[in-house]
Amino acid sequence: MKVALAQLNYIIGDFNGNAAKIIENIQKAKNAGVDLVVFSELSVTGYYPHDLLEKKEFIRKAEETVKIIAASCNGIAAIVGAPRINENEQGKTLYNSAFFLVEGKIQSVHNKTLLPTYDIFDEYRHFEPNRDFHIVEYKGERIAVTICEDLWDEQPTANEFGKNKLYQVSPMQELAKLNPGFVVNISASPFSYNQENWRKDVLVKKAKKYKLPVFYVNQTGAQTELIFDGGSVFINEHGEIVKELKYFEEDFLVVDTQNPGEPELQAKTDRIEKIHDALVLGIRDYFEKNGFRQATLGLSGGIDSAVTVVLAVRALGSENVRVLLLPSKYSSDHSVKDARQLAKNLGIRYDIVNIQDAVDAFEKELATLFKGTQSGIAEENIQARARGIYLMAISNKFGHILLNTTNKSECAVGYGTLYGDMNGGLAVLGDVYKTDVFKMARFMNTNGEIIPENSIVKPPSAELHPDQKDTDSLPEYKILDEILFSFIEQNLSPNEIENKGFDPETVKKVIRMVNTTEYKRFQAAPILRVSSKAFGFGRKMPLVARY
Amino acid sequence: MKVALAQLNYIIGDFNGNAAKIIENIQKAKNAGVDLVVFSELSVTGYYPHDLLEKKEFIRKAEETVKIIAASCNGIAAIVGAPRINENEQGKTLYNSAFFLVEGKIQSVHNKTLLPTYDIFDEYRHFEPNRDFHIVEYKGERIAVTICEDLWDEQPTANEFGKNKLYQVSPMQELAKLNPGFVVNISASPFSYNQENWRKDVLVKKAKKYKLPVFYVNQTGAQTELIFDGGSVFINEHGEIVKELKYFEEDFLVVDTQNPGEPELQAKTDRIEKIHDALVLGIRDYFEKNGFRQATLGLSGGIDSAVTVVLAVRALGSENVRVLLLPSKYSSDHSVKDARQLAKNLGIRYDIVNIQDAVDAFEKELATLFKGTQSGIAEENIQARARGIYLMAISNKFGHILLNTTNKSECAVGYGTLYGDMNGGLAVLGDVYKTDVFKMARFMNTNGEIIPENSIVKPPSAELHPDQKDTDSLPEYKILDEILFSFIEQNLSPNEIENKGFDPETVKKVIRMVNTTEYKRFQAAPILRVSSKAFGFGRKMPLVARY
Repeated sequence: MKVALAQLNYIIGDFNGNAAKIIENIQKAKNAGVDLVVFSELSVTGYYPHDLLEKKEFIRKAEETVKIIAASCNGIAAIVGAPRINENEQGKTLYNSAFFLVEGKIQSVHNKTLLPTYDIFDEYRHFEPNRDFHIVEYKGERIAVTICEDLWDEQPTANEFGKNKLYQVSPMQELAKLNPGFVVNISASPFSYNQENWRKDVLVKKAKKYKLPVFYVNQTGAQTELIFDGGSVFINEHGEIVKELKYFEEDFLVVDTQNPGEPELQAKTDRIEKIHDALVLGIRDYFEKNGFRQATLGLSGGIDSAVTVVLAVRALGSENVRVLLLPSKYSSDHSVKDARQLAKNLGIRYDIVNIQDAVDAFEKELATLFKGTQSGIAEENIQARARGIYLMAISNKFGHILLNTTNKSECAVGYGTLYGDMNGGLAVLGDVYKTDVFKMARFMNTNGEIIPENSIVKPPSAELHPDQKDTDSLPEYKILDEILFSFIEQNLSPNEIENKGFDPETVKKVIRMVNTTEYKRFQAAPILRVSSKAFGFGRKMPLVARY
Repeated sequence: MKVALAQLNYIIGDFNGNAAKIIENIQKAKNAGVDLVVFSELSVTGYYPHDLLEKKEFIRKAEETVKIIAASCNGIAAIVGAPRINENEQGKTLYNSAFFLVEGKIQSVHNKTLLPTYDIFDEYRHFEPNRDFHIVEYKGERIAVTICEDLWDEQPTANEFGKNKLYQVSPMQELAKLNPGFVVNISASPFSYNQENWRKDVLVKKAKKYKLPVFYVNQTGAQTELIFDGGSVFINEHGEIVKELKYFEEDFLVVDTQNPGEPELQAKTDRIEKIHDALVLGIRDYFEKNGFRQATLGLSGGIDSAVTVVLAVRALGSENVRVLLLPSKYSSDHSVKDARQLAKNLGIRYDIVNIQDAVDAFEKELATLFKGTQSGIAEENIQARARGIYLMAISNKFGHILLNTTNKSECAVGYGTLYGDMNGGLAVLGDVYKTDVFKMARFMNTNGEIIPENSIVKPPSAELHPDQKDTDSLPEYKILDEILFSFIEQNLSPNEIENKGFDPETVKKVIRMVNTTEYKRFQAAPILRVSSKAFGFGRKMPLVARY
């Protein structure tokens, strides 16, 4: 049987657009003599529609769209993903389903059994778990249709109190009893640089265990914070990955199950390159899918805004990026020079706006109220917020979306000004630790200097008071980032982190900074997620707590 | 048997504080000759700890605390709520459990079966559902211990596609088979003004159906956005509410199951009064539990800031509230006069800060870049953001927490400036429609004018350009609020709303405004929730979508 893997980029709620794209690929597959073309999880609606799933008219529209797609399946079968109404008397309103379409009709429906409800996943909020296991027969083949998490029954629980498996049921174990010839898994699995091999391992393990070929079709493209990386695969019954589709872009591949041919795998890429590609896609899709074209940001001469603007130019083109240089009396000459050089290297429009007059106006008006107090955070924040006003003025006047340049290290310890440098429609580096921002700057300069060397080598500073350096109030970034990774991604306790060899006082201080700044992150811009644990809706901490 | 209902206010993660409070009430109950004292759901940790539940040391601390509380149960039994490790091989790490403590030991544990995962509830994220039903025997009584949602198996699903029940299991049906003498339900059920009777109806229905008395113990107090209203009850086997505890405060009551005595119910209060009391508690607990004392906000002379400041004074005391009056050249004389009068009526400190110089400094610096453009949103937002800078300067300098004054109508249609008047640590009125804000102002003036009449009767205006009125760009609030309530709380489709008799163009316009401003609410302050559907984490919409 000839099976096509259609790895596409969908827009949430764009039923007409998604259907047109799916139908176009059905036609393409048919022209290639394909028997069955497979699309990804919730391909009809885009993944994940969140509480749009609570709207009746959204669900009705999804139902209609599946029928329209079915009507285009003549002489070919297709598997698409869509929500489906639960017709039973009890349970949640919907199933997360795979529809097997052939000859204009829905031949069978397969509901998702394991509903991930952890980290960024929220599926039990909307869906009832499946309890009915069946196989679809088509052209003499018996096909086990599964949906994403359905193959992840053996994953360990997030916490470790000695338990092995997150779920009570193994869908593959149930389906294997029905003697399938191969497995299809339609998926929506987001990118995270520190889990890149986990996904493949899970799939390979299932193929080996059940001695069945697996077709795994993921979506690509970004949906606000989440970046789906594609990388769909065909794995043979020995657990060998025979075909691998592209990463971070659409792709389409036909596999003959009788004769899959030689392995065709993607070239290995470096971790930093992967994050780079993910972020470029994240920016591009945020803009394109929202109907935006142009971005703005403030270039400080520092590394974060430098890396952000390069990513923005690669995502949107230099003609669509416009920056402000916003010096104050504390800005070093070098800062302005480096920022200007970077803008020139990129060929983007830049304007210099001096914030000092506005800052002075605030301080003058506040002089009576602030009399007798020492200059400190309040005054520093006025500078950061004045910059924010200028950038938002450009955004509001000309329609450029403000990109936030905060990195994950800063974001974690609350080293940023709410309503100031935390402003923005999208936080580009909010899931990238400072040490990785440096590495990315080096990566960007591989084929010639784009980011001025000085921006990379000078000690990081917010330049909000004379001779300020980040290390005045923070540990060295190398230490800080390792402690943060242990605490956030690895979810280790303070004791466990100290046992890695870090200074106990430093560990306590860093964790205290993270815990006491949840309120800032609550109001932060959406953060492009590239790790296994990003700030945002995948990490919900109470704002009022004593812990 | 003498049973005490202990309705208390907990702090999330404050194990020592919560345990001290629980042990004090065990002692109090023992002194009153009580056999069993009942505390609310997750009383040991506070409800809801969110992803603190993923931290091993948090769970270990909860375990230890339960043991400490057990040690204080001599000659008396207690039921407390806490997370418990799932010792089985499979499933989520934890159960949400009720511990029956007596004579220094844990006599039995009862896990929650139905895990609410909708709106503001997220319990399947952390907990495995119970599958094992058992009764605890104590002093000759057979007691069915249930946890909150366990009695809500018959609730209809949020959407209506013809289904009746959200869950597959009825815990009470299982427990009834074991012949209990009465039912205990430990709960954490937040206030919402438009569901106030639903909760009692559910409990009464269960008591009647199974002909069993029900002890229902809720928590009180606010946990960031959520305000728990108490109102614990004892219902007899005929489904009559015999005892009802106080609303929005701690309470303690002993009931003799053999002789419950005459009905003692709380006085009925008006809807607006309930919302008022909820918000006062919401502010007070946000401050007290965070260790804050003082608040600030900007008084514009309008109704929203007026109602907010009265609530703040009632929650924190006039000595702890300090305001700024922030006129610009567009502010009417009346605005300043009304604001000043209100501050005087409340006896709070106020300062007048003129924003014009700062605004002029921004506009002067931007003059070249803005040349040839028409004054509009960009310029209006500079005013709102300059006010935000002044208020945050007071906050940063003196430690006053900025209260946000945005009402739900504004918040819904995006009629507010990000990083300007949307600033704040807590949004007090973000779940109160404008028409209710007016009613609350009237309610506050019941015993004499606090809010100047002029602030109530003048047409609402943002005063960002000459002669501006809210109705320039919005429908009348009476119309707007009904459309919004239909769309947000009732989740009706545009067609269904039009069928209520509203102008189709107005309905479309309002819904478009709601849908296109999700990005603003994403960065809004936490909103005190008083309705069945507040903006915030109980309503998650994708930011990038075409729908």
